[in-house]
Amino acid sequence: MPAPNRFLEYIGAHAGRFIERLADAVAFPSVSAEAAFRTDVIRMAHYLEDQLKSLGVRTKLVDLGKHVLDGEELPLPPVILGSTGDDPKKKTILIYGHYDVQPACKNDGWGTEPFKLVVDSETGRLIGRGSTDDKGAILGWLNVLEAHKSLGLELPVNLRFCFEGMEEVGSDGLDDLIRNEVKKGKESWFYGVDCVCISDNYWLNTRTPCLTYGLRGIAYFKITVSGPASDLHSGAFGGMVHEPLMDLVALMGKLASPDGQILIPGVADMVPPPDEEGKKLYESLDSSVADVEEAAGAKITRSDDKVPVLMARMRNPSLSLHAIEGALGARTTIPATVTGKFSLRLVPPQTPESVIPLVLEHLYSEFAKLNSKNKLLVERGGDGRPWMDHQHWNYQAAIKASEAVYKRRPDLTREGGSIPVTLTFAESLGVNVLLLPMGRGDDGAQYALSRCQMNVAVLIYILGSTNEKLDRSNFIEGSKLMGTYLYEVAAISV
Amino acid sequence: MPAPNRFLEYIGAHAGRFIERLADAVAFPSVSAEAAFRTDVIRMAHYLEDQLKSLGVRTKLVDLGKHVLDGEELPLPPVILGSTGDDPKKKTILIYGHYDVQPACKNDGWGTEPFKLVVDSETGRLIGRGSTDDKGAILGWLNVLEAHKSLGLELPVNLRFCFEGMEEVGSDGLDDLIRNEVKKGKESWFYGVDCVCISDNYWLNTRTPCLTYGLRGIAYFKITVSGPASDLHSGAFGGMVHEPLMDLVALMGKLASPDGQILIPGVADMVPPPDEEGKKLYESLDSSVADVEEAAGAKITRSDDKVPVLMARMRNPSLSLHAIEGALGARTTIPATVTGKFSLRLVPPQTPESVIPLVLEHLYSEFAKLNSKNKLLVERGGDGRPWMDHQHWNYQAAIKASEAVYKRRPDLTREGGSIPVTLTFAESLGVNVLLLPMGRGDDGAQYALSRCQMNVAVLIYILGSTNEKLDRSNFIEGSKLMGTYLYEVAAISV
Repeated sequence: MPAPNRFLEYIGAHAGRFIERLADAVAFPSVSAEAAFRTDVIRMAHYLEDQLKSLGVRTKLVDLGKHVLDGEELPLPPVILGSTGDDPKKKTILIYGHYDVQPACKNDGWGTEPFKLVVDSETGRLIGRGSTDDKGAILGWLNVLEAHKSLGLELPVNLRFCFEGMEEVGSDGLDDLIRNEVKKGKESWFYGVDCVCISDNYWLNTRTPCLTYGLRGIAYFKITVSGPASDLHSGAFGGMVHEPLMDLVALMGKLASPDGQILIPGVADMVPPPDEEGKKLYESLDSSVADVEEAAGAKITRSDDKVPVLMARMRNPSLSLHAIEGALGARTTIPATVTGKFSLRLVPPQTPESVIPLVLEHLYSEFAKLNSKNKLLVERGGDGRPWMDHQHWNYQAAIKASEAVYKRRPDLTREGGSIPVTLTFAESLGVNVLLLPMGRGDDGAQYALSRCQMNVAVLIYILGSTNEKLDRSNFIEGSKLMGTYLYEVAAISV
Repeated sequence: MPAPNRFLEYIGAHAGRFIERLADAVAFPSVSAEAAFRTDVIRMAHYLEDQLKSLGVRTKLVDLGKHVLDGEELPLPPVILGSTGDDPKKKTILIYGHYDVQPACKNDGWGTEPFKLVVDSETGRLIGRGSTDDKGAILGWLNVLEAHKSLGLELPVNLRFCFEGMEEVGSDGLDDLIRNEVKKGKESWFYGVDCVCISDNYWLNTRTPCLTYGLRGIAYFKITVSGPASDLHSGAFGGMVHEPLMDLVALMGKLASPDGQILIPGVADMVPPPDEEGKKLYESLDSSVADVEEAAGAKITRSDDKVPVLMARMRNPSLSLHAIEGALGARTTIPATVTGKFSLRLVPPQTPESVIPLVLEHLYSEFAKLNSKNKLLVERGGDGRPWMDHQHWNYQAAIKASEAVYKRRPDLTREGGSIPVTLTFAESLGVNVLLLPMGRGDDGAQYALSRCQMNVAVLIYILGSTNEKLDRSNFIEGSKLMGTYLYEVAAISV
């Protein structure tokens, strides 16, 4: 059951109006990380609810309570739940998206005003904060709803929606909401959901549509070495005392080798080596070492061969050193207390539960070998399980839809990062989750420290992409893809 | 020729007035590191010149031109040259001191207003910025001059003075001034100087006077590793790319082991192992591991034995890691460019010229071994030669003076840090330099980041001691010591 031509034509014919609606959405500076914009985040929620209602969706705004940000108690933005269609003969698909955005201000390196959507008619780029992450995708679903309503077409599936406003800062309260909602049984907004579709990631490149069937997990650590009561002068004390920074550097040097090997015993071995078929999958992906070099802005890949480079991102665990803090003192000091931060990205069958004890044991035993009188403190900084699932009919439907709209087979990829809500949906609802990206790999490629949010007292740095964009064709063809996917899901016999 | 009793009695009898003059001097916030206080530094110079003139010293303020600080062009504080006595039968002693001070504000952890001298009658402490570093010492010499003038006593030596106002920020212009002055021959303010006395360091402890006959040199390095065009997300890139911070940590881990061994081939070997006599010297010093632990505020000495601990500070080279910068980004980034800073403290026969090439070769060869595609940049951050000289009559005179005033043999020590002007005087004038401390080892023990000087734009951190003090007895007995030293110098036959 391919999507009706009328639907596809409607989307194409109304592109201008859809882009106007995207401009309306982008105009809300719904920055969840900054207290000053909380009202705008909430205004964005009401705007979106109104749009859903006008398209025939039954909605509810769920209050998640309050939290403290920058020393200020603030209301959390509501989660928008939505429902349309209750036909027991149809499949029920749950759509997730988020309406909050990363911080942005022109000083960060934007070429245009971030909260004013700019249509670059030459390149077809729709430039603005949230255009691709994630307002464009949410509006893609609205485009699908509008087309059906205007054409008097019946949707091929029942739809449920869950749109949140805190994704960029850790999805406060969302996990609890999902778990509580599931417990309500027949009263639940998620009752009867057959599968989930999340559109909040990107193609591997700028050419080929992609479906994402795996995400790496994460285990995050913070290690602090402290010694003297305050910073010491290296002239007076250098040589006499154990130096915290020297100990920390030695310890962090024992975590991974510069060529990328994880040196924590037992961690890398958990993952079986790839078989020939696995290698062929990575060979087949429309990506190259040059693509990675372009994204990184430098020729710094650990291999010159595409297969190990892509496997390093998608199927292998990795360890990254993120920060060394406390070592910014005067010219010749011995810093008194220094903190290192690192994390491991995990892949199945690794889990935080299986990896964390190995990391802790390694840290303590390597530190003991230093024979230092300084003190080591190890703290954990949050973790998430890896996820992989791609033999499901949900993916078969998405592959067919991608082929129908883009006339080519999509890349089947795994992502290096984490989208924790994926796992919450998969585990709480017990259903398959499809990651169906709308945007391209270069939509938010350049990340920069957001200077508008530099907090002098606490030195918070927030990383945000600059010049975020969504290509016009990805917005319009992506809306067609979403609709087509619903028809393919409906058609597949389970 | 011991000092006349009249002199010693005068100093004791006028302690109250001397402390008042110290309070006057401390009241000038002559902070050389901060543009806002430059006028006060210059006012302090005029105050000091007036004091010298009133005590019969011929003076000259030498203009050193301008420099740029915090983006502002400022006049450098003048050097005060002084001269009293021209008797060719007497020895001529050059006295050095500095009238500028470290930054201080109450927020940094001071218990009192830093620029108001507080006399703690219970402990005998004179608390205030500059009390011990270095206004107390300069005023000690003024006390000696005043006693002689008031008593109608002739000074036993000719005196020359050189007081600067930029010591705390690197003595801008002083080396050139000294070298130019020396070139003037008979016209020079330094003509005929037989030896130099500098009072700008501290006893090893709080109990025993000390003479310092050696200083370590320094070679400072800054190494920057850069890779991607901007910070990368570790989810998307972790594993695929060479990480600058991982490379830097590996490289910095190859410099010294946590137990203090310098790992740069050829550097430690330059210094011969200590002989039995050398070890006895350190055994004889009035210092203990507990003293070092107290100064550091923690039990972190690399040995539990006094001799290796003291040798590590005084006779052995050391390597310290000072900073890792650029790695303060968001939670899960791979920082794009990171900089490490380290320095070696050098002892004879090491020189910066002999050590620097070994360090550079080691850095480049170890980085090459990492096989990283990131880039390494090595920069040098200034250096200074080590210095050691203690068989001279200048020291014999100071030992006798210390025994006369304090009734005990002084510790003969070498200092771990650098006082670069020491070497400039020694080399330019070709004479012996004596370091004759006035204050105790705990005078500025607690160092803290000076928050009053935190510069948001550039993030300059300035380290300053808090609650700086000079003990009343060190000020008064120290003034007696200075005068007695002049008599002992005069008496010694060369």
